[in-house]
Amino acid sequence: MKLYIGNKNYSSWSFRPWIGLRHAGIPFEEVQLWFDHDHGHPEIRAMSPSGKVPVLADGDLVLPESLAILDHVARKLPETGLWPADPLWRSRAMAMACEMATGFSALRAACPMNMRRTPAPIKTGAEVAGDVARIKTLWGKALADSGGPFLCGSFSIADAMFAPVVNRFVVYAFETDAVTRAYMDRMKALPAWQEWEQAGFAEDAVVAEEEV
Amino acid sequence: MKLYIGNKNYSSWSFRPWIGLRHAGIPFEEVQLWFDHDHGHPEIRAMSPSGKVPVLADGDLVLPESLAILDHVARKLPETGLWPADPLWRSRAMAMACEMATGFSALRAACPMNMRRTPAPIKTGAEVAGDVARIKTLWGKALADSGGPFLCGSFSIADAMFAPVVNRFVVYAFETDAVTRAYMDRMKALPAWQEWEQAGFAEDAVVAEEEV
Ligand SMILES: N[C@@H](CCC(=O)N[C@@H](CS)C(=O)NCC(=O)O)C(=O)O
Ligand SMILES: N[C@@H](CCC(=O)N[C@@H](CS)C(=O)NCC(=O)O)C(=O)O
Repeated sequence: MKLYIGNKNYSSWSFRPWIGLRHAGIPFEEVQLWFDHDHGHPEIRAMSPSGKVPVLADGDLVLPESLAILDHVARKLPETGLWPADPLWRSRAMAMACEMATGFSALRAACPMNMRRTPAPIKTGAEVAGDVARIKTLWGKALADSGGPFLCGSFSIADAMFAPVVNRFVVYAFETDAVTRAYMDRMKALPAWQEWEQAGFAEDAVVAEEEV
Repeated sequence: MKLYIGNKNYSSWSFRPWIGLRHAGIPFEEVQLWFDHDHGHPEIRAMSPSGKVPVLADGDLVLPESLAILDHVARKLPETGLWPADPLWRSRAMAMACEMATGFSALRAACPMNMRRTPAPIKTGAEVAGDVARIKTLWGKALADSGGPFLCGSFSIADAMFAPVVNRFVVYAFETDAVTRAYMDRMKALPAWQEWEQAGFAEDAVVAEEEV
């Protein structure tokens, strides 16, 4: 399998399947396509059916969409536990993944993922505060119901989908409670997280649009 | 199972699981929660974990997110064929569903679903044109590869997710080619489509924010 991704410092959607596959120990080849906002990302547009990264190539299948990539791999390799084995937790994991994939647009627009950013708060409005509050509630309820340490008990697609949000909470220094903070610390301690973060640190490219 | 939905005339996200469940012949109870933009939709906020409809209640499980609801039901009742049986087509169906659920924000913002609207074009910009072009390409490729009559061959979650887009193409009178038009006609001819549309016609509530 070949995973096409964007800049590790900035590409939140790429980070999701990457951390899921890497944490699960699934071998894959990685192809990096660099962001080029000024020219409409020609490298990405040339290969991706949706014009966006991430894209997974698996044999003849060329699959866009972070959540679809994770779902494809989880069904192909059920022993990785990327989807919870319990059917009800699987449905909850899917709902969390979908809420992340489709929602929180205020937070996503105001606070781009940025692995290198020095943590500091920025001025944001009520909509971002609403997104942050909902995310804390969602994490808190899942962790309480499952018993942790991850949202559905062991690490799943739900955690992979929220990984870039953990970075946002850190680098924009949102107020967090003990439960939220402990969950974020567990995510940041994952070897797969560390590996992606170090690679982001090492990148030179600065994308003005993503620096807030 | 109980499906909580919004106004049939306007609630595009509610239409997606509703048409999927109804077309598949799955019995469910329907609870309508009316939009109330002026007051932040108190009825919806009171019952939905995400503050949005649709929501599915199945025993103790209270599940938001249109795509998660469809996935839950499709896995619970695989004989409905809501997910394609072929693993590769299932991955493609999921990718189409995700691209719809997460994307096309220009089209969605400029052209709200509106079952009652008298078909007529409106002035839209390049971003909407880009969304419309991508949707036609996606439909065309899926129909060509599967042989139709629906995106993955027989009706699946991919079609359910695109149902509100079919309404938008009709009521904002976008230019369509023969393949697109034939697909739209097949969608509109579904008894489940007809039933939802008639119910939308019969609703009195007018939501100014959704009338363009
Ligand atoms: N819904 C998509 C979103 C992908 C996306 O927006 N990717 C960004 C990079 S993080 C991109 O490729 N942007 C280029 C563009 O939109 O032109 C997914 O989940 O994979
Ligand atoms: N990602 C959600 C979107 C749901 C959604 O935005 N629903 C709208 C009605 S169509 C809603 O409940 N809006 C009320 C609000 O946002 O306050 C899904 O797929 O179900």
